[in-house]
Amino acid sequence: MTVVLEPVPDHVPLPRGFRAAGRHCGLKKDRQSDLGLLVADVPVPAAAIYTKNRLQGAHVHVCRDHLARGNGLVRAVLVNARNANCATGQQGIDDAARCCRELAARLRCPAEQVLMCSTGPIGAPLPAERIVAHLDGLLAAASPDGALDFARAIMTTDSYPKVVAARGDSAAETTGFAKGSGMIHPDMATMLGFLVTNGRTGDARATAAMLQRVADRTFHRATVDGDTSPNDTLILLASGRAAVEPAEVEAQLTAVGRQLARRLAADGEGASRLVTIQVRGARTEGEAAQVGRVIATSPLVKTAVAGLDPNWGRILSAAGRAGVEFAAERARVWVGPADVYSGGRPHPENEPEAHRHLVGETEVVLGVDLGVGLAEAEVWTCDLTKDYVQINADYRT
Amino acid sequence: MTVVLEPVPDHVPLPRGFRAAGRHCGLKKDRQSDLGLLVADVPVPAAAIYTKNRLQGAHVHVCRDHLARGNGLVRAVLVNARNANCATGQQGIDDAARCCRELAARLRCPAEQVLMCSTGPIGAPLPAERIVAHLDGLLAAASPDGALDFARAIMTTDSYPKVVAARGDSAAETTGFAKGSGMIHPDMATMLGFLVTNGRTGDARATAAMLQRVADRTFHRATVDGDTSPNDTLILLASGRAAVEPAEVEAQLTAVGRQLARRLAADGEGASRLVTIQVRGARTEGEAAQVGRVIATSPLVKTAVAGLDPNWGRILSAAGRAGVEFAAERARVWVGPADVYSGGRPHPENEPEAHRHLVGETEVVLGVDLGVGLAEAEVWTCDLTKDYVQINADYRT
Repeated sequence: MTVVLEPVPDHVPLPRGFRAAGRHCGLKKDRQSDLGLLVADVPVPAAAIYTKNRLQGAHVHVCRDHLARGNGLVRAVLVNARNANCATGQQGIDDAARCCRELAARLRCPAEQVLMCSTGPIGAPLPAERIVAHLDGLLAAASPDGALDFARAIMTTDSYPKVVAARGDSAAETTGFAKGSGMIHPDMATMLGFLVTNGRTGDARATAAMLQRVADRTFHRATVDGDTSPNDTLILLASGRAAVEPAEVEAQLTAVGRQLARRLAADGEGASRLVTIQVRGARTEGEAAQVGRVIATSPLVKTAVAGLDPNWGRILSAAGRAGVEFAAERARVWVGPADVYSGGRPHPENEPEAHRHLVGETEVVLGVDLGVGLAEAEVWTCDLTKDYVQINADYRT
Repeated sequence: MTVVLEPVPDHVPLPRGFRAAGRHCGLKKDRQSDLGLLVADVPVPAAAIYTKNRLQGAHVHVCRDHLARGNGLVRAVLVNARNANCATGQQGIDDAARCCRELAARLRCPAEQVLMCSTGPIGAPLPAERIVAHLDGLLAAASPDGALDFARAIMTTDSYPKVVAARGDSAAETTGFAKGSGMIHPDMATMLGFLVTNGRTGDARATAAMLQRVADRTFHRATVDGDTSPNDTLILLASGRAAVEPAEVEAQLTAVGRQLARRLAADGEGASRLVTIQVRGARTEGEAAQVGRVIATSPLVKTAVAGLDPNWGRILSAAGRAGVEFAAERARVWVGPADVYSGGRPHPENEPEAHRHLVGETEVVLGVDLGVGLAEAEVWTCDLTKDYVQINADYRT
């Protein structure tokens, strides 16, 4: 089972000044592509956000080091799937650094202007030799039309490539990519995300701050199973080539990030429903998001959706344990268009309408108003089905 | 599926000075008992710990109020199953208070010396009339041999009654009860727990502090699904009738609490394995327990156990996101008797032995040494199976 929000487009544009490619280097079976490249014509301002897991993939060390030494300027990002290069010790770091060095030599740029990301199972050494052997072919294939090839190359357990392009009224152009299906959670997951834009984001510090704000409202609000991986990385490349102000760039990045976050949740392992948690009436947006995340990770709420049960009690209970201000007597709970709890009491007369919403839609809405303020937030998740258990019980067998 | 740690005994003793009973008042179907009573011959020092959920069952309000007004002295605890008296507003509080008042009148004690607990589905009014109509019968049935009757009366989705009695070398006697199967988590769950002892626990403040320490090492280390309910309550009644020092009483309460916590995890919804998470090499016991709780709530770890997969990567990743000090290079991971990760690398050669442990035992052990200190802790959980999803998707339908 999986929830497809819309068909994969035939073509996805990249902002001017960027090229992309994807090809098979031998990590995945059946000649599926497993090595992706994003390259900018010139070094561009960049920023990254990494997993908060204490166990970190080798590429996290290398990206941190390169961004710091390169003053936040990046020429290219290399991504391999099907090998996380994690729990591989110093050798793993050396292997990732070598891949960056080899690509930089071909681009005639400093090694620190190349970043690398790896995703997949952990514990096996990175076959750096094989990756390096495919760099020339990858560079030759890099093209302004390569967005979909790149999106396919970074997939692991994803059912479909996740790529979203936005064009503003002005000259602003943003294209975003993500991969992930399980282990998706705020702060983050086996998630990799890449945002490329032609807009201006300011200096390195301002670019990093903008990416953090964007992530907090997008990727950090998607959860599949509450687990996070050692490799989660989100990278922003902003060429600044178009005369677009930072505020407009941030709005566009946020819009693209939201769509990618929704796709991550929709493609959650075993999912039969994309679930949008709407939290209103909170004191602050941060508290609203916190309540949303607790509801979105509750196995009882997620199994209720799988069972098409508009279970207001589980939603209210989950909201109640989020540790934020909450007025049970003034709270309201809705499922799609139907209020199922308000004024301190349930409304069983509205449950048939709520049930119809759960049955009829693949994008369902669960909402709660905390009754203590005016702030709101949305969080995206999926239902918890028997297929999720099956997929994750059988992953290695 | 369920994991039975040992057969339910034919008879369970109560400490001298306590009586118990259980009977059917019409809340459960099929004349199963649904109303339980614990009564002390004289008012005894008591303490309670409640859910931290902002949504709280009516009995939580009443217990807090009665313990405060009664200076921590309690004569009796009344428990009903199959109705949580939660999300029932002021009427629910009035209903619970009325049940206490009616029982107190029959015991000729102040109303504040009676506590009440409710467990079951939320949202429906408490049928107080029906409960009150059975108080005389319940009191008449109360007996030193009534422990098992009480344990059965408080069950809801439990597969078996959870009652443990301990007798020390000295005169110390403790009997403990718990109910819960889903929504089990530290701080707590649809869990109700009761500990009765003849030992001395000191004044009200010392009794409350002892119960908190006991809970932190027992009930707060059991998790089934990470969800908590609005009704979770743990109550200690300590008669002080035997000349047993507080330190010995605390050790006995902790031993009984551990056995009850293990049973809660073993009887987790859909469980096929009781899973003990052993965390060693932490800086503090609190940090060890925190790591244990993160591993124990990871759906990826829990589905791996269901799939009989000794997946060291998921254990290490979960430990890594617990937010506590952790040395990936010095860390060690074991599954039963087999080391599957140490010295910064996996040991696939030991995985067959680990797999045999998962296949052959219904009580399995997953361990991690964080490599940064000497503190340790255990946490108990169960695996996550398709049956869990089935039970919770279909609960109301």
